[in-house]
Amino acid sequence: MSRIDGRAADQLRPVTIERGWSKHAEGSVLVSFGDTRVLCTASVTEGVPRWRRGGGEGWVTGEYAMLPRATNTRGDRESVRGRIGGRTHEISRLIGRSLRAVIDFKALGENTVVLDCDVLQADGGTRTAAITGAFVALADAVAWGRRQKLIKAKAQPLTGTVSAVSVGIVAGVPLLDLAYEEDVRAETDMNVVCTGDGRFVEVQGTAEGQPFDRAELDALLDLGVAGCGRLAAAQREALGEG
Amino acid sequence: MSRIDGRAADQLRPVTIERGWSKHAEGSVLVSFGDTRVLCTASVTEGVPRWRRGGGEGWVTGEYAMLPRATNTRGDRESVRGRIGGRTHEISRLIGRSLRAVIDFKALGENTVVLDCDVLQADGGTRTAAITGAFVALADAVAWGRRQKLIKAKAQPLTGTVSAVSVGIVAGVPLLDLAYEEDVRAETDMNVVCTGDGRFVEVQGTAEGQPFDRAELDALLDLGVAGCGRLAAAQREALGEG
Amino acid sequence: MSRIDGRAADQLRPVTIERGWSKHAEGSVLVSFGDTRVLCTASVTEGVPRWRRGGGEGWVTGEYAMLPRATNTRGDRESVRGRIGGRTHEISRLIGRSLRAVIDFKALGENTVVLDCDVLQADGGTRTAAITGAFVALADAVAWGRRQKLIKAKAQPLTGTVSAVSVGIVAGVPLLDLAYEEDVRAETDMNVVCTGDGRFVEVQGTAEGQPFDRAELDALLDLGVAGCGRLAAAQREALGEG
Amino acid sequence: MSRIDGRAADQLRPVTIERGWSKHAEGSVLVSFGDTRVLCTASVTEGVPRWRRGGGEGWVTGEYAMLPRATNTRGDRESVRGRIGGRTHEISRLIGRSLRAVIDFKALGENTVVLDCDVLQADGGTRTAAITGAFVALADAVAWGRRQKLIKAKAQPLTGTVSAVSVGIVAGVPLLDLAYEEDVRAETDMNVVCTGDGRFVEVQGTAEGQPFDRAELDALLDLGVAGCGRLAAAQREALGEG
Amino acid sequence: MSRIDGRAADQLRPVTIERGWSKHAEGSVLVSFGDTRVLCTASVTEGVPRWRRGGGEGWVTGEYAMLPRATNTRGDRESVRGRIGGRTHEISRLIGRSLRAVIDFKALGENTVVLDCDVLQADGGTRTAAITGAFVALADAVAWGRRQKLIKAKAQPLTGTVSAVSVGIVAGVPLLDLAYEEDVRAETDMNVVCTGDGRFVEVQGTAEGQPFDRAELDALLDLGVAGCGRLAAAQREALGEG
Amino acid sequence: MSRIDGRAADQLRPVTIERGWSKHAEGSVLVSFGDTRVLCTASVTEGVPRWRRGGGEGWVTGEYAMLPRATNTRGDRESVRGRIGGRTHEISRLIGRSLRAVIDFKALGENTVVLDCDVLQADGGTRTAAITGAFVALADAVAWGRRQKLIKAKAQPLTGTVSAVSVGIVAGVPLLDLAYEEDVRAETDMNVVCTGDGRFVEVQGTAEGQPFDRAELDALLDLGVAGCGRLAAAQREALGEG
Repeated sequence: MSRIDGRAADQLRPVTIERGWSKHAEGSVLVSFGDTRVLCTASVTEGVPRWRRGGGEGWVTGEYAMLPRATNTRGDRESVRGRIGGRTHEISRLIGRSLRAVIDFKALGENTVVLDCDVLQADGGTRTAAITGAFVALADAVAWGRRQKLIKAKAQPLTGTVSAVSVGIVAGVPLLDLAYEEDVRAETDMNVVCTGDGRFVEVQGTAEGQPFDRAELDALLDLGVAGCGRLAAAQREALGEG
Repeated sequence: MSRIDGRAADQLRPVTIERGWSKHAEGSVLVSFGDTRVLCTASVTEGVPRWRRGGGEGWVTGEYAMLPRATNTRGDRESVRGRIGGRTHEISRLIGRSLRAVIDFKALGENTVVLDCDVLQADGGTRTAAITGAFVALADAVAWGRRQKLIKAKAQPLTGTVSAVSVGIVAGVPLLDLAYEEDVRAETDMNVVCTGDGRFVEVQGTAEGQPFDRAELDALLDLGVAGCGRLAAAQREALGEG
Repeated sequence: MSRIDGRAADQLRPVTIERGWSKHAEGSVLVSFGDTRVLCTASVTEGVPRWRRGGGEGWVTGEYAMLPRATNTRGDRESVRGRIGGRTHEISRLIGRSLRAVIDFKALGENTVVLDCDVLQADGGTRTAAITGAFVALADAVAWGRRQKLIKAKAQPLTGTVSAVSVGIVAGVPLLDLAYEEDVRAETDMNVVCTGDGRFVEVQGTAEGQPFDRAELDALLDLGVAGCGRLAAAQREALGEG
Repeated sequence: MSRIDGRAADQLRPVTIERGWSKHAEGSVLVSFGDTRVLCTASVTEGVPRWRRGGGEGWVTGEYAMLPRATNTRGDRESVRGRIGGRTHEISRLIGRSLRAVIDFKALGENTVVLDCDVLQADGGTRTAAITGAFVALADAVAWGRRQKLIKAKAQPLTGTVSAVSVGIVAGVPLLDLAYEEDVRAETDMNVVCTGDGRFVEVQGTAEGQPFDRAELDALLDLGVAGCGRLAAAQREALGEG
Repeated sequence: MSRIDGRAADQLRPVTIERGWSKHAEGSVLVSFGDTRVLCTASVTEGVPRWRRGGGEGWVTGEYAMLPRATNTRGDRESVRGRIGGRTHEISRLIGRSLRAVIDFKALGENTVVLDCDVLQADGGTRTAAITGAFVALADAVAWGRRQKLIKAKAQPLTGTVSAVSVGIVAGVPLLDLAYEEDVRAETDMNVVCTGDGRFVEVQGTAEGQPFDRAELDALLDLGVAGCGRLAAAQREALGEG
Repeated sequence: MSRIDGRAADQLRPVTIERGWSKHAEGSVLVSFGDTRVLCTASVTEGVPRWRRGGGEGWVTGEYAMLPRATNTRGDRESVRGRIGGRTHEISRLIGRSLRAVIDFKALGENTVVLDCDVLQADGGTRTAAITGAFVALADAVAWGRRQKLIKAKAQPLTGTVSAVSVGIVAGVPLLDLAYEEDVRAETDMNVVCTGDGRFVEVQGTAEGQPFDRAELDALLDLGVAGCGRLAAAQREALGEG
């Protein structure tokens, strides 16, 4: 009943959060959850999209993509196919919503932050690693904006922290932070996005095989909240706030 | 504290499920949840997509779209823009997953059923109405397939029923089956997809404003499960199984 | 020599024009010519496209589409294929031209009306039903614009009425308002668009098999003009002007 | 009341049909109607599209396009915009239908002929010049196919000839073969496609300003038929059959 | 060791440069290098693209395309496929760069010239014929702009002339101006773009088979420079400056 | 006259070639030329594209892309825009050609290798770093293919090595391996691709400002050949063949 990599059911894979990975971006993080590696960059620009102008509020959005050989078999590039797939769309939207949940748009001012999350290597949990890393890149970008006087000195655009983790039921056992091989065998798959104080930003649970009952759902939520807490600690440590 | 249309917090809007709406489709349903009206058609074809051939198993998929003036202001057609938006992608995928959760693919045989859910008029809850209506269209399509001998006489492709409902917290109060005006004011928004026996197929909760806590999540799940149960009854009645 | 549904050669199918079908659109009509059912909505917006600005004149345009299972076998969605087909383009342009033929753009003022014609069920004559229904939706939209003071009280943007019908030669006999099964067997196929006073807005005749001669063309035009006249009466009745 | 170039109302512009313009194509014609110049090439390939295979019948299709500076102001390339416009689609379809009207597909055998009509310079009547030139290129391609034994020695794939001309009412006067400046001022605009024996393949009349009555329609048809007859003579002469 | 058409190794094919080919364009040239024929039009518009505004400088750009049957077998239209191929992109960019090399943008003023180079018939060297012809069209367009007072009387937007030729090694022998059949057999293929005074604007050499050494490169450069010189003379003659 | 980073005119930036960067790909290299960092993966699949089947020969191709924030200001994703830009197309083609120059396709057998070169951080010379890194990834992929018996034991698919470097003239001085800030100021810009034995695979020189003369071209070629030689040594060392 032990996991493929010997972890306990409620144990995260090794997590690393490497800041300042890019010399160009206002915030940049190479995050890894085990063998899953995602490069998250935060790009700050003055101004907001047309539909949001004039209200004094900023905007934060996310874009997710995989390199073609991030996975075990090469996937066609979406740029070559000429269209973005449904999965990419869905995850990009999730990243944007998750980060906006901890932003005070008034405090951000009419500035836009784009979080690009590019998966360099995939081994399950790419979207949760992306959210967790993107938050740290966003924090660095906000700090940069403050130094550049784009953001007012006393403004606090970040209302909290946000992290995410996958959970799932494999062979009847609820597991935290699924690796790819566990993910494909999971009967139920859930992504939990939490703030640093343990509240929910997003909960997405899907029955891959049998429908799941309330007890299973509760067990997964418990695991997910605990995992997000440990990731929040890793974020604080990476930001030197531990 | 009463709702805009005078409903109780745990009350569905009037639900109608009109079968046999189209003369061409193998199954067709015009479903309405209040002013939300979705035309769901099920199209059966022999054979399965290339990647699924040869295993003797069928396939079920969904496509969702809105007519341009289903909403209060006209939206551009995705066909004219030349690409499908993220929201459309996301909902199409949800519909497909939800219906596949109650399908025994072996029993279906190498046949494909496409569920097209076109929103004729939108007033909140279009995806949940779509799933609820599509299941009935799917049941009719399966019956058609059995009459046509595409499906074996003793095969039971449907392993259960599936319905869906939205729930949300508006002004601090958990509400069932949000109308559009409630939806835009909701602090938390959740879609619950359940089987007829009350288990979960999909749970998607999103904090639109403040993050939500476990007690709120539990209240929403309770409401959602109860709502799905009443929709399952409406489905049975529509199918003459009440 | 009788027709598949027992009609006389110069007889229309049952025509219904149901106004106010949508709660959102400024004008909306569900029109049916027999089993052909088209939802026509008119959307009014202040202002005109960029290339038309500044002259004080309005604009009217049309968009036509079919739901994927409006027909006997399911068609791929044009939004999914990423491009609009030639037939769709052609009919959308025809609808726009036909309605513009009865518009005084000065009287309309710098307002735009988009007529969306979505075929819910197809059984031949979808473009002619669309034009006939769209005119009624347009009339309702103009009335709405006058109530909203977007259109001046004394302005008369509608210079007349417009309706359309298909005619064709099947097994040597000229027939009015072809159903799908007649249409596929027609040697010559023609669409006639007329104003309420019996003049032509558009005439499109095509030899599907043998070329046709002037006598056949004349017979088809006679049938078409008569059919349009009866449709104009149905429009007046629907608008309470009978 | 004389025309801009001094022609009589029922007079064609100078017509030239230059065969063998391309060294690669199986048939190729540079056709000019006055300043309108269209390069028509016919490409023959063995086999037919998938949906037509196995019946022993051939296929003929057309594609129309304009060079970006064929017109007075430069138009964007459709290849650069990434999509074909409605007008291009419509004319391509018209060309294909017109040529198929004089083809015996059994006699053609399972071969495909594509007629590419590229407008090098436009001055009104590009679609009618295209059809008239494409027929000659098609005739050359059929002759080539016979020499190559793709088409049987005794088979007669061409059942007749086809030509086309525009007619219109300008300042109340019916005119033949409109130049661009006449075309933009026309109240009614019609394209007439006829076989060499004077029957109709396609008639498309459109009211650009006022609707037109039956007498005007008749006058335009008379002009068009006469014009097509003279073009048929020019085709015969070009093919050395005069 | 003689060439397929009997030319000497260092001999150009017959070159013709026919000005004023189009009645609409501000400059237009039908250029031929043997059987390669390219229609080059220059379109002048006031103003520059958004990213270039306000600096008082003009812009020159190029677009290259092939008619579908310019080649021995018909190619699909890029407009129909919905995307431009890599080769088209690459050559369009080369044409633009080459012509910009002889433009003084200040002298041109805030005007844009687009050079459209459409290959009517291809037999090798289409890009070099396009550049050579486009320069002459550009010169005519500049003269037109001066007559229209878009360009100041004393301004000299052209700082020189530019022409281009292909060279290659076939069966070990360096050859000038390859025809298609030579091109496909070439071990090394090079395009040389020179100004009229013999300096280089662009050099692009590619090993198609074996890598090439410095001596071969030098021989090709010598041939290319000499060929460009003769083309520059042909350009001067065409412009009446011989 | 010293360079921005203190290098000599004929000095490369620090070069690192890190093999085995990805756990999934058959070959993977993170290559850096100074601050330019490119992830090159080689994906091997059995079989070749349809147009190449049956001849017993393999195929090698390349795809190049930049992460959106690889550069100083964020660029839109080509997948989001729905089309690949000309520069991307051009570089992808260059990478493919360069690597095919050192492949014996018979020895490779009917296998395909795709080289994906994704720029993680750009500081000039991304295409030359991509080619240099991709060769090492290709060598690892070939070794993998031999171990997997996809490639015969005695077959030598690699006929040599290939590397690439940029050279340019900045302020009149020929410089090797331009960083971005040098590149934007270069009057002439050249990319040189050489085999390990010092012959040319590709030479692409472009005048960005003034045209360049033969002496300048010769100086750039000398620098480029020398630079490629040093890169070939770095490749050998990375492959443990130093």
